[in-house]
Amino acid sequence: MSAATPTVTSKTPSYDALATANRRIYRLEHLQSMAGWDQAAVMPPKGSEARAAALAELATLVHGLRCDPSRSELIARAEQEPLDAEQRANLREVRREFDLATALPAELVQARQIAGSRCEHAWRRQRPANDWPGFAENLREVVRIARQEAELLSQHLGCSRYDALMQRYEPGMSNAELQRLFGDLQGWLPALVARVRDKQSSEPVLQPQGPFDVAAQRLLCERVMRLLSFDFEGGRLDVSAHPFSGGVPEDVRLTTRYREDEFLTSLMGTIHETGHGRYEQNLPRPWLGQPMAQARSMAIHESQSLSFEMQLGRHPGFVGLIAPWLAQAFGAQPALEAENLQRLVTRVEPGFIRVDADELTYPAHVLLRWRIEHALMEGDIEVADIPALWDEQMQQLLGVDTRGNYRDGPMQDVHWTDGSFGYFPCYTLGAMYAAQWFAALRAARPQLDEDIARGDFEPIFGWLRENVWLSASRWTTAELTQRASGTQLDPVHLRRHLERRYLGA
Amino acid sequence: MSAATPTVTSKTPSYDALATANRRIYRLEHLQSMAGWDQAAVMPPKGSEARAAALAELATLVHGLRCDPSRSELIARAEQEPLDAEQRANLREVRREFDLATALPAELVQARQIAGSRCEHAWRRQRPANDWPGFAENLREVVRIARQEAELLSQHLGCSRYDALMQRYEPGMSNAELQRLFGDLQGWLPALVARVRDKQSSEPVLQPQGPFDVAAQRLLCERVMRLLSFDFEGGRLDVSAHPFSGGVPEDVRLTTRYREDEFLTSLMGTIHETGHGRYEQNLPRPWLGQPMAQARSMAIHESQSLSFEMQLGRHPGFVGLIAPWLAQAFGAQPALEAENLQRLVTRVEPGFIRVDADELTYPAHVLLRWRIEHALMEGDIEVADIPALWDEQMQQLLGVDTRGNYRDGPMQDVHWTDGSFGYFPCYTLGAMYAAQWFAALRAARPQLDEDIARGDFEPIFGWLRENVWLSASRWTTAELTQRASGTQLDPVHLRRHLERRYLGA
Repeated sequence: MSAATPTVTSKTPSYDALATANRRIYRLEHLQSMAGWDQAAVMPPKGSEARAAALAELATLVHGLRCDPSRSELIARAEQEPLDAEQRANLREVRREFDLATALPAELVQARQIAGSRCEHAWRRQRPANDWPGFAENLREVVRIARQEAELLSQHLGCSRYDALMQRYEPGMSNAELQRLFGDLQGWLPALVARVRDKQSSEPVLQPQGPFDVAAQRLLCERVMRLLSFDFEGGRLDVSAHPFSGGVPEDVRLTTRYREDEFLTSLMGTIHETGHGRYEQNLPRPWLGQPMAQARSMAIHESQSLSFEMQLGRHPGFVGLIAPWLAQAFGAQPALEAENLQRLVTRVEPGFIRVDADELTYPAHVLLRWRIEHALMEGDIEVADIPALWDEQMQQLLGVDTRGNYRDGPMQDVHWTDGSFGYFPCYTLGAMYAAQWFAALRAARPQLDEDIARGDFEPIFGWLRENVWLSASRWTTAELTQRASGTQLDPVHLRRHLERRYLGA
Repeated sequence: MSAATPTVTSKTPSYDALATANRRIYRLEHLQSMAGWDQAAVMPPKGSEARAAALAELATLVHGLRCDPSRSELIARAEQEPLDAEQRANLREVRREFDLATALPAELVQARQIAGSRCEHAWRRQRPANDWPGFAENLREVVRIARQEAELLSQHLGCSRYDALMQRYEPGMSNAELQRLFGDLQGWLPALVARVRDKQSSEPVLQPQGPFDVAAQRLLCERVMRLLSFDFEGGRLDVSAHPFSGGVPEDVRLTTRYREDEFLTSLMGTIHETGHGRYEQNLPRPWLGQPMAQARSMAIHESQSLSFEMQLGRHPGFVGLIAPWLAQAFGAQPALEAENLQRLVTRVEPGFIRVDADELTYPAHVLLRWRIEHALMEGDIEVADIPALWDEQMQQLLGVDTRGNYRDGPMQDVHWTDGSFGYFPCYTLGAMYAAQWFAALRAARPQLDEDIARGDFEPIFGWLRENVWLSASRWTTAELTQRASGTQLDPVHLRRHLERRYLGA
């Protein structure tokens, strides 16, 4: 800068310094995210050790930047600076992230990482072997550490232990709120499942006959992604063992997995990930690099994937649109006609496995996990108590007997193996939010069903863009919900949606 | 560490600290390398701005680690420590890298980066438009900065300017040495080209008729890579606009490019990159993360790609092996029979473009670039003098008239646009080294031609592994050459190889 150039003195130097540091972190996280995608989607097996070392090195570096002690002072000073409303919202998120990042001592974070890796690694063998005692031993250590984390976080954040753990995924959510929402759900879900199963027992459904060419599935998935306005100039679809939405807002990397014997998993999974992906692709560009530009929470993210997969993707109008594409992809057969396809994607069948569950029974899987992990974290039960509780709840909610079947019972999910307690509720909160968004949409636009059947999704995407995507983390989740739908989160919308779709009520 | 554990006091604390820092840098460079591969091979266009910012952020960080002022003191202390021979060799490389990294002030590095980006970016338009005046304007700035770099580096390293620039690519090489090697080459090359063209004028060659299915080309390339023992468990082949060998030794990422109208470019290009790739895959594992484990130099790297592409890939025995595979891939036709194929891959045809040149005329393209860039850097000529010199040399070396054709003359390469002066000689040095390796191999194993024709490449790979790959940067290039072949680099081996292959002499 030449001597003649006048220097503008910022009135918000501390805020500016934080914003600059945020951008640096954002850029480094870009590389973490891409290396993570690469690891899952394209990396050959012998690259794995070097990749793990490289990612650990960068994680240490980013963690150091996040927890830089000077941030504490900068945040306190920035809070006294003349910020505008958006800057203030951003600073709220900066403080939230900093508090979460610094609440735990490094040794505890490392201990969790080691115990989690060990448990998860052994679980890959133990689950197929149905080895509950072996798994329980590792899980006890994971639980012990998670309770310590919960205790420290709860002191730091001033809330209960389980509430404290949830803040990582769902800022502002509390167990009291979950009791209101999930208590309501538990009241009507089992009876609804029973009524729907009774109704569907007289509605025969044909199973599509494979094989289903993988290349044709891929083209079909990409075609449906285009129908859903996924921007392929700023993203890709690839293959990984466990499908996910990764990458960065500027370059969204979705994955799916193809099976020759059936195509619905890859197709519906892709629609699900496309919901996540479009949220990311439409986060507010001018704010990218700042915490305020991030997706609001895990439940709000899931509300987008479920808006796509459940609200839209299983809507009869949508199914009617894509049914002819399936016949083009795989050859015509009666099972691929619209009416049968609609029955296929809304078939209700209680089962053991959460990730295979249908729209109606899925929340039951979440309810039981929530009750168990909450009791575990608050110290009301121990690891040894899990199988009996699991079976009791599965019997009660879905009429399924899981005794002795740990593999398809409490050992089925990866979440607990690395101590991600407090995450499961987000799935069903997401379903509730999605139902609430569509209720608000429908109230504003009564002809929504005709829009969908015509393939005109712009009313939906426009509403989501305005109310969710571009809001990012500008508002708290409660504020966002209120602004978007006029009320707080209300489980009645999920109930009405399910009753209408599954009972025609 | 508990109080009861005895602490081992290292006798080489400074060396150890350097080694630890080297490993950190290596891990971060892993992410740079992978993000670079991603950018070229899979990234969608809208990801490019965020990627550039992320890579710049990490580059700043790595540069900071490389130039950390404490390294200077650590290196000096380590040089006094009781190191073994390997550690001492590693320390030599550490110092070399540090000296190069710290010789230039940050502003000059940045100025070069800006001028280089501008020149390269404009060149993409200017080249197709044959706009020499526009290009020359930007190139003048690039040259001005490169001369400053050369001046500072030459003071720092105590050698001439052009020698100093070459140290980045070819440590230990000097222009005096190039004059010995390239002076010899220039003495016999034009006459050899003339004799070969005369001989080939009576040897008709059939052109294969396309189209050549791209999927079949890909399978063919992968098949040939397997024949060449490329380890697909630790690497991949993908597509990019400009083929390269990237990734890291643990995960080598090669790329190629397919054209429907001809297949030799992708096939021979893949064989070339496989040579680079196998060198990387076979660098000494226990030393990875240290400078001593890196490939020796650009010319030695090129000696591997040319050992694969030229010495082996155009050997009649090799061509005989893969000819039936081509017929399988694309359908049989007379042009794909072994004898014609051999003529195709050894056809000599002077032309404008270096990257399209055959084995025999390629060195002429390098000779002329070397003369011009050396004169430019030593201040003997200016940018405005380039076209006339270019034409004069092309006339003299290859009998080609380039007047007014800047696009296919001095504007054809990307190297000068970003100031990479001193790189071009490595291509032809690589060809000389490759010929020297095969001469040594042949002396040790007279039945080498039969080995090749039988598809038994293990004698070749074993020799390269022992003498080049596992040596990495353990020895200087001169030492490596002496140990591998018993003499210093001697252009007679390239001459003999070309005379034997092209004249049957």
